Amino acid sequence: MSVVALAGGTGGAKLAHGLQAAVAPGDLTVVVNTGDDTERHGLLVMPDHDAVMYMLAGRFDDERGWGLAGETWAVMDGLAEYGEADWFRLGDRDFATHIARTGRLHEGLDLTSVVRSLQAALGIATPILPMADMPVRTEVRVDEGWLDFQEYFVHRRQGPEVREVRFTGDLTPTSAVADALAAAEVIVIGPSNPIVSIGPILAGPIRGLVAARAVAGIPVVAVSPIVGGAALKGPADRMLLSLGHESSALGVARIYRGVATAFVLDAVDAALEPDIAALGFRTLVTDTVMANHPGRARLARSVLDFAAGTDRIGAL
Amino acid sequence: MSVVALAGGTGGAKLAHGLQAAVAPGDLTVVVNTGDDTERHGLLVMPDHDAVMYMLAGRFDDERGWGLAGETWAVMDGLAEYGEADWFRLGDRDFATHIARTGRLHEGLDLTSVVRSLQAALGIATPILPMADMPVRTEVRVDEGWLDFQEYFVHRRQGPEVREVRFTGDLTPTSAVADALAAAEVIVIGPSNPIVSIGPILAGPIRGLVAARAVAGIPVVAVSPIVGGAALKGPADRMLLSLGHESSALGVARIYRGVATAFVLDAVDAALEPDIAALGFRTLVTDTVMANHPGRARLARSVLDFAAGTDRIGAL
Repeated sequence: MSVVALAGGTGGAKLAHGLQAAVAPGDLTVVVNTGDDTERHGLLVMPDHDAVMYMLAGRFDDERGWGLAGETWAVMDGLAEYGEADWFRLGDRDFATHIARTGRLHEGLDLTSVVRSLQAALGIATPILPMADMPVRTEVRVDEGWLDFQEYFVHRRQGPEVREVRFTGDLTPTSAVADALAAAEVIVIGPSNPIVSIGPILAGPIRGLVAARAVAGIPVVAVSPIVGGAALKGPADRMLLSLGHESSALGVARIYRGVATAFVLDAVDAALEPDIAALGFRTLVTDTVMANHPGRARLARSVLDFAAGTDRIGAL
Repeated sequence: MSVVALAGGTGGAKLAHGLQAAVAPGDLTVVVNTGDDTERHGLLVMPDHDAVMYMLAGRFDDERGWGLAGETWAVMDGLAEYGEADWFRLGDRDFATHIARTGRLHEGLDLTSVVRSLQAALGIATPILPMADMPVRTEVRVDEGWLDFQEYFVHRRQGPEVREVRFTGDLTPTSAVADALAAAEVIVIGPSNPIVSIGPILAGPIRGLVAARAVAGIPVVAVSPIVGGAALKGPADRMLLSLGHESSALGVARIYRGVATAFVLDAVDAALEPDIAALGFRTLVTDTVMANHPGRARLARSVLDFAAGTDRIGAL
């Protein structure tokens, strides 16, 4: 069964890890947000891609919540000594990823080929595809003006209220993404921030490619990143509110109308299920919190079983 | 007293370190070979500049003979995991140098400004000036053809015999180098390989700038890197022989005819002194082996005292 998962940061990466364990090798493809990507010290850093890559390689630092387990910090300390901004911390082993990637891009290879070569070196059977080969950058407007996403997310620690979000660059999907979606038998929208993690993926032509599959009867299952009104990690809850949405599974479901056909919400939000179903979604109420590795695989199996259900009700 | 030292790798760097200790802060300027520079993993690596920079910062790894003391190797191991060639070993802290330098160059700054900013961050009062801002690359012809210098020097471990040497690129000196030479009261040619370390510096217009100072009566003192017929480090001895020179202080002195006015040779080579003097050089016979830090300062003081001697005999 060909599964395509759309993923942003940690939540989507965790579910992708569970899905990788739940399907046959090669049956999963992950499409990752590139709007978070940034140039640091002349190197291309891809936080969402790398979270998924390290997660699928079993090397993500679950305790810290980002980067690689067992990192050291000599390069960053050296850069700080040279007066380089060091608020965006990158570990030594992680720098190898950014150096190899940037070097291969400078040789003229496209982004998808470059990151596939890195994934293969880490022994990952799952293709992790950038949503686009051309740069896309997420920017958020706060009261003082427009900020680069990482300036807001890391440097300002998500402090300012987000008033508006935009994506600059070229959202044209790659042929690898288009092919994967065309062949998908299940599409999963991971429990990542719907505004700035999944948002950029669905802001361009990919939205139409996913919706076309939904119209063709393929289940498109979104998993809520909001549990009990709050984001498990990150600023999704505050961002939903400041952008005029409801910080709840229902608020997320409303955002995914027209593209998803089914919706997974946490058991603590069971009371919202009728309202979500009323939007036209087939629903699954389950434990969505992936506290550990078995939790990821369990949720992934629940999502796939749910997707395979025959009572498909289009929400389009 | 304004002193300009021309330096390549370790020997020249050691003498520069001694000179820095022997003169007032800011009185020394080092002009370094850039023909050894190379792109590794998309980053500009400058082995001779960095040897001098780390030496003058007191952070050179004297035991290993290259790089920084106390290095770790996580980035290199990571790059090797990604399938990048790892025969050119770079430490983690050293990577910070290459990353900061390459990033600043990409921002459009010239090479001299960029490396000066790195030197300043390490607290070095001595300007270390690249001989040129534009890329120059040393290539050596061996029996199988032309090799990039680092391919010969590091990857092939100086195994093949060198049949010919050439320098490609733009040897135009920077205004900083021209200004330093114009103001120099003493010019020291360090005990680095005369073919591939000092050779590139003197292959372009800098040769004329140095010779003009010699004509003007400024002492230009070359220190032999060959002691007892052998190089203390590196392939200078074999290279001299395979290129038709004599592997001796006399052979080196012949190469510096027309540009240096005075020559320092080791006490073990005292028998060569008459022949070197017969070439027109003023000569100093002394212990030139810098076995430790005090040895560097001692040789530097000897060289400066010798340069200050009034019995100048031009060798031009």
